[in-house]
Amino acid sequence: MFIQNCWYVAAWDIEVPEEGMLARTLLNQPVLLYRDTQGKVVALENRCCHRGAPLHLGRKEGDCVRCMYHGLKFDPSGQCVEVPGQSQVPPKTRIRSYPVVERNRLVWIWMGNAETANPDDILDYFWHDSPQWRMKPGYIHYQANYQLIIDNLLDFSHLAWVHPTTLGTESAAELRPKIERDMNGNGTLTISRWYLDDEMPNLHKKVAQFNGKVDRWQIYQWSPPACLRMDAGSSPVGTGAPEGTRVPLALQFRHTSIQTPETENTSHYWFCQARNFELDDDSLTEKIYQSVVEAFEEDRTMIEAQQKILNLTPDRPFLPIAADAGLNQARWLIDRKLAHEADTENTN
Amino acid sequence: MFIQNCWYVAAWDIEVPEEGMLARTLLNQPVLLYRDTQGKVVALENRCCHRGAPLHLGRKEGDCVRCMYHGLKFDPSGQCVEVPGQSQVPPKTRIRSYPVVERNRLVWIWMGNAETANPDDILDYFWHDSPQWRMKPGYIHYQANYQLIIDNLLDFSHLAWVHPTTLGTESAAELRPKIERDMNGNGTLTISRWYLDDEMPNLHKKVAQFNGKVDRWQIYQWSPPACLRMDAGSSPVGTGAPEGTRVPLALQFRHTSIQTPETENTSHYWFCQARNFELDDDSLTEKIYQSVVEAFEEDRTMIEAQQKILNLTPDRPFLPIAADAGLNQARWLIDRKLAHEADTENTN
Amino acid sequence: MFIQNCWYVAAWDIEVPEEGMLARTLLNQPVLLYRDTQGKVVALENRCCHRGAPLHLGRKEGDCVRCMYHGLKFDPSGQCVEVPGQSQVPPKTRIRSYPVVERNRLVWIWMGNAETANPDDILDYFWHDSPQWRMKPGYIHYQANYQLIIDNLLDFSHLAWVHPTTLGTESAAELRPKIERDMNGNGTLTISRWYLDDEMPNLHKKVAQFNGKVDRWQIYQWSPPACLRMDAGSSPVGTGAPEGTRVPLALQFRHTSIQTPETENTSHYWFCQARNFELDDDSLTEKIYQSVVEAFEEDRTMIEAQQKILNLTPDRPFLPIAADAGLNQARWLIDRKLAHEADTENTN
Repeated sequence: MFIQNCWYVAAWDIEVPEEGMLARTLLNQPVLLYRDTQGKVVALENRCCHRGAPLHLGRKEGDCVRCMYHGLKFDPSGQCVEVPGQSQVPPKTRIRSYPVVERNRLVWIWMGNAETANPDDILDYFWHDSPQWRMKPGYIHYQANYQLIIDNLLDFSHLAWVHPTTLGTESAAELRPKIERDMNGNGTLTISRWYLDDEMPNLHKKVAQFNGKVDRWQIYQWSPPACLRMDAGSSPVGTGAPEGTRVPLALQFRHTSIQTPETENTSHYWFCQARNFELDDDSLTEKIYQSVVEAFEEDRTMIEAQQKILNLTPDRPFLPIAADAGLNQARWLIDRKLAHEADTENTN
Repeated sequence: MFIQNCWYVAAWDIEVPEEGMLARTLLNQPVLLYRDTQGKVVALENRCCHRGAPLHLGRKEGDCVRCMYHGLKFDPSGQCVEVPGQSQVPPKTRIRSYPVVERNRLVWIWMGNAETANPDDILDYFWHDSPQWRMKPGYIHYQANYQLIIDNLLDFSHLAWVHPTTLGTESAAELRPKIERDMNGNGTLTISRWYLDDEMPNLHKKVAQFNGKVDRWQIYQWSPPACLRMDAGSSPVGTGAPEGTRVPLALQFRHTSIQTPETENTSHYWFCQARNFELDDDSLTEKIYQSVVEAFEEDRTMIEAQQKILNLTPDRPFLPIAADAGLNQARWLIDRKLAHEADTENTN
Repeated sequence: MFIQNCWYVAAWDIEVPEEGMLARTLLNQPVLLYRDTQGKVVALENRCCHRGAPLHLGRKEGDCVRCMYHGLKFDPSGQCVEVPGQSQVPPKTRIRSYPVVERNRLVWIWMGNAETANPDDILDYFWHDSPQWRMKPGYIHYQANYQLIIDNLLDFSHLAWVHPTTLGTESAAELRPKIERDMNGNGTLTISRWYLDDEMPNLHKKVAQFNGKVDRWQIYQWSPPACLRMDAGSSPVGTGAPEGTRVPLALQFRHTSIQTPETENTSHYWFCQARNFELDDDSLTEKIYQSVVEAFEEDRTMIEAQQKILNLTPDRPFLPIAADAGLNQARWLIDRKLAHEADTENTN
């Protein structure tokens, strides 16, 4: 069971090619993504209404797509506009189309009731396409339910254990973050982690122009269904970072981690790590990207193994610890939204 | 759920070797096929009645087969004739044997009530072994339910879309076939498609001794459970083909497409494309065979992808179009036969 | 459904390394095996109580193991002794630990109620570590339910059919073993097979210092859940073997075959073939080991194929033959124990 009425990410912009089409399963539904003649992204059900053939084996014709099994042609609204061998096309000969918005290099899709889709609700990821920031987009496919990935992201104490040589330092294990909840919209958690007078993690050491102890921060918003936006960095110790000063030597990053359920047991994961320094150094972009990939593979190994263990006894409860504060709130926000959708459905 | 009381194809003759044995799952049942000392095909349950060991790991002994787990020996009727360590063999120590007939190079099997099996009901495929015709037998394994393959064969409008460069021409999309139903026996559909003053498809161009426009035909019988027999060809335009004249230059083919369910989600598919010209040109036989294989892989790609999409929401209905007339009648004939078998079972 | 309250084998001693850890699924439960600082084997649930992460991705710390997801540390009793970020560890923060005994080079585990575990009930396999015997330990993973392997071991008539060129001779098919039942404890069957004035099987020919006919024996105890111990050998014919004399030329072996269910459809299988002659000839050890491996692959091919056939119609009954006497008694002993455990559970 997934939240339906919210904006999910369907793809990075570059995953939807100018020519050709992208087939992707989202929330157990087959979705077709392509660009019309203006380059605008179209999202249709990837299932011909006639006999269920997948449209990604079909052919783009102008703004339309033609099923290459029996030739039905659909416009971007999902309406069938041609049935070979028939002079008339009944109006009900149509497939579902999904509201879709391309913004900040992400393709956002609304899988629920289209009438309630408001593009103003899409979260801001300005560092994806701002001239002040630079990043390389990343994607991982997970053999695990998306909520296990959310659990991971909402408790950074795991940095000490899963990522000791990449993202983490020992201090991550004991640090208690500040967690604030903003109940506007679907609800957003703001989690602030300050590591004062601490070591730099290896990810920072690789790119820093200075040595020694740092004041380091991870301040992130997490919003349902599965969107994380983070301000993270390291500043030479005592240069005022906690008070808001960012001296030129300070390393500043913006991080993106977003998941969309593919099925109950598999997930899509988009990420990037943007920086605001040495923007034109492509090898630095690649180095940072590879460092994050390395660390995220550490997560994937753990989470996919965890999923396998949980599958053996899916009904056994978890046992909470203090570090769960963030992830418990995230799960509560998701459950609240799911309950709301179930209520609405029952009322209608 | 499959029709039980009808003749299914189990194999091409050459698939059942002189020595050795062939194990094949048909209608979810494990079947063993081998030849007795006279070369006659025997079909037995491929499951020892003792503890379920598969007999294809066993040994042929004369007309019999011995299970190589504990040594039980079965004759072609399925009766156990030897239990090592026992002087007596109780009559109930037996496995099922299936009526089986080798005809026109096909091995036909009756999976239902053996008492109702009548070899006279087996369809005629004379072009498989007539000296006037030549063909190379083909087999495909499908990851799809057999009814999706029938749907494909009963609507040749797909030739325009799935096979534009092999079997089809554009005209296939719009052409309305004539469909006649003969309710004798299990019911047979005759579907006639005439393409007058039309292009030759590439399959014909490769072998024709003439150029230019043609009168082309596809006239086929389809009979439950899944047997297609087709007269197809191209004649120089205006040489009287529609009136029944076949001038020497005309290309004449007989085509076979037969399916047998393996499981609910997998199928066996036997096919061939026989011709009545240049019979001794083996390279031509091979060329025609390869052309059909190429085209049938186009079908398989589409149908297996369609099956995956259908699996996501198996209960969603199809949306009919005019071109479905043939396949709807085929599905109706199958459902009628299934309903009849269910009634008979309930009465007994 | 598996017997819970009995000693199962979890591993050969060498499978549990001095450093590192062994993860193994036993009776559908994930189990972690490692050695403490004294070398003593510890068996814990391989599932952190916090969020189900597998502990084999964790780290040994002294006698303890730390989960490398969020850092919980468990002692050999399963008690959590450290939760990073918490000053207190609630007593219920614990995972299951299993009674475990290392004896005769095997690691035995008790998966049921720990209070009823009595190491005195562990069977004697002295030939694994006696200075008078020599063997090489073997392990096979099976894609089949463990009871199909027991069936195989309790009816050696299959030696004539499955192993004609390795373990068996033709006489195995007809020979009726003597079967005795001892109802102490869980029950033990003693099965005695004497082949008088018979051929040597190839396994014996490969190592014998004499030729000609032999008196040959296989005398084995089988005890639930799945433990076989065998005295087997060949002696020159007429040298008194049936009366208990073992002349110096006689080949004497002790054989071990033990299974533990992994899941309903997969099994662990430990085996060895010990001898009491030419103890220091390592190439002989290897030759005997390879001969047994070759023969046991013959079994695995048959049993895994049998499992696939049984899966098609899991509820169809078997049809008994005279040779089933032993395996029927073994299945009866297992069912009796399962029924007893079900009763006990219902009473509590």
